[in-house]
Amino acid sequence: MKNWSSRFDEGLNPFIEKFNASIEFDISLLQEDLDCSIVHAQMLGRQGIISPAEAIQIQKGLEQIRQESLQEKFPTEVTAEDVHYAVENRLIEIIGAVGKKLHSGRSRNDQVGTDLRLWLRRKIDQIDQKLNCLQRILLITAQKNIQTLIPGYTHLQRAQPLSLAHHLLAYIEMFQRDRDRLVDVRKRVNISPLGAAALAGTSLPIDRLFTSKELGFEDIYYNSLDAVSDRDFAVEFSSAAALIMVHLSRLSEEIILWASDEFAFVSLTDRCATGSSLMPQKKNPDVPELIRGKSGRVFGHLIGLLSIMKGLPMAYNKDLQEDKEPLFDTVKTVMNAVEAMSIVFDEGLEFLKDNLSEKVSSDFSNATDVADYLVKKGIPFRQAYEIVGALVKLCIKRDILLRDLTLNEWKEISPAFSEDIFDRLIPQQVVASRTSLGGTSFERVAEQLENWTSRLNS
Amino acid sequence: MKNWSSRFDEGLNPFIEKFNASIEFDISLLQEDLDCSIVHAQMLGRQGIISPAEAIQIQKGLEQIRQESLQEKFPTEVTAEDVHYAVENRLIEIIGAVGKKLHSGRSRNDQVGTDLRLWLRRKIDQIDQKLNCLQRILLITAQKNIQTLIPGYTHLQRAQPLSLAHHLLAYIEMFQRDRDRLVDVRKRVNISPLGAAALAGTSLPIDRLFTSKELGFEDIYYNSLDAVSDRDFAVEFSSAAALIMVHLSRLSEEIILWASDEFAFVSLTDRCATGSSLMPQKKNPDVPELIRGKSGRVFGHLIGLLSIMKGLPMAYNKDLQEDKEPLFDTVKTVMNAVEAMSIVFDEGLEFLKDNLSEKVSSDFSNATDVADYLVKKGIPFRQAYEIVGALVKLCIKRDILLRDLTLNEWKEISPAFSEDIFDRLIPQQVVASRTSLGGTSFERVAEQLENWTSRLNS
Amino acid sequence: MKNWSSRFDEGLNPFIEKFNASIEFDISLLQEDLDCSIVHAQMLGRQGIISPAEAIQIQKGLEQIRQESLQEKFPTEVTAEDVHYAVENRLIEIIGAVGKKLHSGRSRNDQVGTDLRLWLRRKIDQIDQKLNCLQRILLITAQKNIQTLIPGYTHLQRAQPLSLAHHLLAYIEMFQRDRDRLVDVRKRVNISPLGAAALAGTSLPIDRLFTSKELGFEDIYYNSLDAVSDRDFAVEFSSAAALIMVHLSRLSEEIILWASDEFAFVSLTDRCATGSSLMPQKKNPDVPELIRGKSGRVFGHLIGLLSIMKGLPMAYNKDLQEDKEPLFDTVKTVMNAVEAMSIVFDEGLEFLKDNLSEKVSSDFSNATDVADYLVKKGIPFRQAYEIVGALVKLCIKRDILLRDLTLNEWKEISPAFSEDIFDRLIPQQVVASRTSLGGTSFERVAEQLENWTSRLNS
Amino acid sequence: MKNWSSRFDEGLNPFIEKFNASIEFDISLLQEDLDCSIVHAQMLGRQGIISPAEAIQIQKGLEQIRQESLQEKFPTEVTAEDVHYAVENRLIEIIGAVGKKLHSGRSRNDQVGTDLRLWLRRKIDQIDQKLNCLQRILLITAQKNIQTLIPGYTHLQRAQPLSLAHHLLAYIEMFQRDRDRLVDVRKRVNISPLGAAALAGTSLPIDRLFTSKELGFEDIYYNSLDAVSDRDFAVEFSSAAALIMVHLSRLSEEIILWASDEFAFVSLTDRCATGSSLMPQKKNPDVPELIRGKSGRVFGHLIGLLSIMKGLPMAYNKDLQEDKEPLFDTVKTVMNAVEAMSIVFDEGLEFLKDNLSEKVSSDFSNATDVADYLVKKGIPFRQAYEIVGALVKLCIKRDILLRDLTLNEWKEISPAFSEDIFDRLIPQQVVASRTSLGGTSFERVAEQLENWTSRLNS
Repeated sequence: MKNWSSRFDEGLNPFIEKFNASIEFDISLLQEDLDCSIVHAQMLGRQGIISPAEAIQIQKGLEQIRQESLQEKFPTEVTAEDVHYAVENRLIEIIGAVGKKLHSGRSRNDQVGTDLRLWLRRKIDQIDQKLNCLQRILLITAQKNIQTLIPGYTHLQRAQPLSLAHHLLAYIEMFQRDRDRLVDVRKRVNISPLGAAALAGTSLPIDRLFTSKELGFEDIYYNSLDAVSDRDFAVEFSSAAALIMVHLSRLSEEIILWASDEFAFVSLTDRCATGSSLMPQKKNPDVPELIRGKSGRVFGHLIGLLSIMKGLPMAYNKDLQEDKEPLFDTVKTVMNAVEAMSIVFDEGLEFLKDNLSEKVSSDFSNATDVADYLVKKGIPFRQAYEIVGALVKLCIKRDILLRDLTLNEWKEISPAFSEDIFDRLIPQQVVASRTSLGGTSFERVAEQLENWTSRLNS
Repeated sequence: MKNWSSRFDEGLNPFIEKFNASIEFDISLLQEDLDCSIVHAQMLGRQGIISPAEAIQIQKGLEQIRQESLQEKFPTEVTAEDVHYAVENRLIEIIGAVGKKLHSGRSRNDQVGTDLRLWLRRKIDQIDQKLNCLQRILLITAQKNIQTLIPGYTHLQRAQPLSLAHHLLAYIEMFQRDRDRLVDVRKRVNISPLGAAALAGTSLPIDRLFTSKELGFEDIYYNSLDAVSDRDFAVEFSSAAALIMVHLSRLSEEIILWASDEFAFVSLTDRCATGSSLMPQKKNPDVPELIRGKSGRVFGHLIGLLSIMKGLPMAYNKDLQEDKEPLFDTVKTVMNAVEAMSIVFDEGLEFLKDNLSEKVSSDFSNATDVADYLVKKGIPFRQAYEIVGALVKLCIKRDILLRDLTLNEWKEISPAFSEDIFDRLIPQQVVASRTSLGGTSFERVAEQLENWTSRLNS
Repeated sequence: MKNWSSRFDEGLNPFIEKFNASIEFDISLLQEDLDCSIVHAQMLGRQGIISPAEAIQIQKGLEQIRQESLQEKFPTEVTAEDVHYAVENRLIEIIGAVGKKLHSGRSRNDQVGTDLRLWLRRKIDQIDQKLNCLQRILLITAQKNIQTLIPGYTHLQRAQPLSLAHHLLAYIEMFQRDRDRLVDVRKRVNISPLGAAALAGTSLPIDRLFTSKELGFEDIYYNSLDAVSDRDFAVEFSSAAALIMVHLSRLSEEIILWASDEFAFVSLTDRCATGSSLMPQKKNPDVPELIRGKSGRVFGHLIGLLSIMKGLPMAYNKDLQEDKEPLFDTVKTVMNAVEAMSIVFDEGLEFLKDNLSEKVSSDFSNATDVADYLVKKGIPFRQAYEIVGALVKLCIKRDILLRDLTLNEWKEISPAFSEDIFDRLIPQQVVASRTSLGGTSFERVAEQLENWTSRLNS
Repeated sequence: MKNWSSRFDEGLNPFIEKFNASIEFDISLLQEDLDCSIVHAQMLGRQGIISPAEAIQIQKGLEQIRQESLQEKFPTEVTAEDVHYAVENRLIEIIGAVGKKLHSGRSRNDQVGTDLRLWLRRKIDQIDQKLNCLQRILLITAQKNIQTLIPGYTHLQRAQPLSLAHHLLAYIEMFQRDRDRLVDVRKRVNISPLGAAALAGTSLPIDRLFTSKELGFEDIYYNSLDAVSDRDFAVEFSSAAALIMVHLSRLSEEIILWASDEFAFVSLTDRCATGSSLMPQKKNPDVPELIRGKSGRVFGHLIGLLSIMKGLPMAYNKDLQEDKEPLFDTVKTVMNAVEAMSIVFDEGLEFLKDNLSEKVSSDFSNATDVADYLVKKGIPFRQAYEIVGALVKLCIKRDILLRDLTLNEWKEISPAFSEDIFDRLIPQQVVASRTSLGGTSFERVAEQLENWTSRLNS
């Protein structure tokens, strides 16, 4: 018997019953559904829609269900259709007819919206915490590597050397933007639809501000139709999640490159690497590869949600039931990926400083500095650029580096060069000179590290 | 102890172990993994890589695992990492050291590719069967409704009346295209990568043609690198699945419209409709709504897979592990959606013929016929079109239909009209006249029904 | 000759030259590129990197280019590669060698990032204005229709009657959320990357705070690597745009339904509807259909951008050139779609009030009110629900409405009913009774209209 | 005046007129529209729907329009709405009232479907040709590099050495699958909807088989409703295009890696590389980066198309107008990307064979061969694997390679080793030994090259 079966003569086809049921996954909302119902019952009591005694009875019944669930005794059969009916049915079993009063002045439409927002709000806070943790671990690695140089790339070609700390700070910035975005998303998640009822509000004298406040919402929806139809918050969260995965996938790509024999910037520890079933020598960066792969999954869920919402007329349509699984999986994927990346930086990587130091000394990534040297001597940049381009071409043909040119050779190309040019070619010096705001100079990097230390600890 | 742990000193971080493990979902490939390993062992025996006796021993061990799995006694702990190691480890437990010989001349890279293709091949055949079943149910409904008229729409505006059978035949065509596509996809799924080993082939004297043939593959991959890196078949299947969902979503949309109070073309039976938790009068078309929503999910998985594949260097990368869950869920979603739609047409809908018949009689959907009438009298189409446009405008202003005009009024507008125009306005006549190939005339529709009856039964 | 050609011996393959060039579309950024370069030149002058006279000369040259562009005389040949080089080359043509000093202390990487952010900031403000305009037009329509009733739907089944104003207010809420989101996006768009140079900052004594302030940015990027690699702002904007399109597509779907013969809630005026090439009677809701279709395009661009960003290593990669066309098309699509929807409500629709009023009187959408009536008499909701379900079933069998039952018949089913039940069945009364916050009662709706009037005018 | 304006009183809002018009982009279909109309006119003449003389007159008029278009004199103003009306209107201008007879027995719905299929069929053939060209260029490179060794990777970790020709053959296989898929897609593109008219067929005695045959279609649609609503072919093509881009993006990623200083497997020639605006030493692999980026764009269009189709009721809806731009851009993007990749292999890359040869000699990518050596001596694979794993670990600790171990050291670990183990460690030998079908041995590779030479030339 379904809760709505009085209008029907025949039972559901059993395949269809299972096809329609959401209990298999929306059981994840059980705690939130109980929170929501308890506050709703309190409100019904306060407003005289049910008696205070009835309100207390209902609340006790719901608390008993919570106990049962914590002991994994709460039954979740498909006949219950969804978590809301499962709870209501069990409540009536426990406390009898009074349980039938709970669903006054609300509908499953506003109820599930409330549950989902409560659940997501909690998860956003957990993700934020995990991102903070990842930032801190990156910060610790950065603090140890201010003086460690690493080649900086554009187009995966060596461009200019960097402080490794500066490189890691770029990711701290990205994850901070992710956290800032979550703050903005959370504002729009944390609005109460409870009391919008099916779509039009109710004639019962409910108090929406009470339930909103008790459940920790910042505000309520002021249009009942919008309240039950809106899934912007789910899409918006998924977009923010997709960007977190973009950032993680970029960092993953870099780790995978760094761990290759060719780059050899890091070695993988046994704690986070795995072997091959066939090739005994292999040590694979599975974790960043998996994180990179999982970004596709989160993008997919985002587009899935948008497709679901497109062109739906007002108000609730059953299509909306399909919002839960992608959202649940997105949350799980992001949380695990952030955690896994934290572990990788905590115990999975060792930077091979000798190799890094050798790499930055043996290329042309100091060429811009020669151009800037000339600019400071008054030569127009574009002309300076051409001079250095010609110099680099010359060196490549002779298979030497810029530092291997003699002073005479420098002067031959431009009389503006003098002895001090050789200083400017040393990688440490190249990095140290980038003192513009946001630049990679040790000085600027140290300032940023200090800044982040205080921000992340506050 | 991992199977690859001899090169490692330290154990995996437990969170990372769980993060990396795929056993939770790739256990779905167990039967295929056993099939693959049995044939591989036979081949190793035939080729003298292991002794015939050893081959038989391994085969028996694997069959025992199959028995255990059928009795749900096969353990699937996360420590096994994946289904392949779970099987190998259990095999060694059962038959001892001989089990260690199984993994000769192959790698998990070609093994998982083989398993996945075997699994998908089987599922494609099941989906094809379910689509055939849906076509037959639509055909039965069509056969009963050759003479039933239904408004035909463009832009959701009444355009021209149709035979309901004709309308349903459009979907039979779509699902046939889906089945044709599956045939094409299946060709590219049914290619054996087994024996490509990790990426380069092997120096052991394996016989790839034997294993391919025994496992029912049509051909083998002729490049080992491609064999282990290719996931085209998964993407291509997902694209075909997305189109199945497009078709189901369009049919769903129509059912939802038809079941509305405004259209009232069908009534929903109690077998496939559900009620509201709050509004006692409601009877909702949950099934088509859910199918429509689920199309978003399948689109999402497709884009997820494409994102995973983009820019991956050769050969196997761990990102590919992320191919399974979207593929598994796509298969499940499509199978259930097709089945649910079949049930809807089998026992969930009743066409309200009286209402349909009334609708097609009370609009201007016979206007094109008036233009064609004039064309047959030699009036250029575009001019005929203008005449009828003016007639319609006139009728709307007078709030009458075309049939309400007197012969004089017709003649006033064009002397080409004579008494027989009234015949041409009758909906049955309108439909009957569309005798062009593929048209909605009863004659053409009957031909098509006959054609499909023999095609679907063959 | 390319600006970077001094390091190269041979010229580009002509197909590749065209393939690489972005001038065809990034010419859209011309005004922003000029703004950026003018401020950059001023800064170079202030900082003594070039002389004040040189700064003025450059500025004048750039202003001349602006004049040329306004007169459509600025040449955009493919040999220029991109808008930045086109400007620099033209500048050197105009003012000679001094023009070669402009590109000191910056790179195209930070330059294009700056241009794009300036451009998008401006477009966000325009979209916001257009959304405000759409809200106002909806508000005007709503104000005229407080007392107009419209059936409210869930699952496209009649659920409860609504004030039409309430229905329209739901969309005003959605577009407000869109605007709120744009405010949040704008914060993250409005950050200056200028001076990050190629990726590492510069050794020239530039003043990033000056250029940032002059260009109206709120803050600067504090990490140069992040500054040139970040495209979060483009993705985030695209997500916000996708949600605008979701809302427009939902409203479009409703208009298409409303304009159908079956619903007949609105008639389309000639100002926004089009005809058929074949069927003379047709009047099609092309505009909402096109808007609904265009939502797919915007979703596509979003997923395209995410795919581009996935797994890109630091810092700038040429892949990022592909960010522009989807972003440009998204902006154009959203702007046009919002504008088109405004026109539809302004002059394209007429609500057919008589028909609407008839519809809400002839169904069971007052059933919830009967249940609530019983709840107020102390009957538990779930029991009340069952009573009403049975009543509805009875009425359907007898082909009557609830209002057609006699008082005796009511009382037979429950003694709780008395004469006043008939009042509760009247649609106007049903709507008026939903006085909960956010409900559809006329009173609440009037409050909301007042609230929005002052918000949208401020 | 619109062609359909006789039913309307007022003109369109000018913004809406522009918003609705498709002429800006569907002008690309002009030649196909003329082809379609010419054949349609011939058919009308043959069937006596118009006179033979009229048919000839129309045909001449259409040919004149073709001449005008070739001379770029055909006007494409927005008032024409779309390419179909632009042609019809111009035809009437040229030949007078007879032109008004052309649109008999068809609608724009079947007409645009016909045009689009003709256009796409032609483009598929062009893409196929370009893919064939790319395969040939890869084949030439492969033929020159049978003996060139390159490290083979899994997880971007060195796995086993490969013949470079084998590596390139993997891509020839992928592009062949793409071509095979295009063959399958083409079958479903090449079906004629012409004569389905608006949605229901027509009462005029048209001959659909004639027009189908004359236009080179393989078959006709047998259901008129399906004929005008079907866009499967566009989606299916887009899916195939997405896979082409996946393959190109993977090859691009590899080239980008190979061109990095760290890999240094190839050097970029000046013909296909570009420089930096700031860093004079840079030579960037822009072309593969851009191709990789463009894959996102094609994925986006695919998802855009799917979103458009989802949930559309029968038959034509204006949303379908949005199919063209993504399809056009997909075709252009794929064609250019394939062409650009061909040029890269033709004149953009030089493999640095010395470096490649050094790389494959200095790692543990021969470890699997040691395990296989033991397997051949009868040691179970998993045990052999463990022995080699321990050996590798030992070598890493002593910072030596396997070849540096003495025979005694080998024997100490397993008495199965003898002098011949050293031979097995040599990279050339490692590659040569992989003689399984599809393996990388020189022998197998030569066979495959021969096979492809004859396939690609046929």
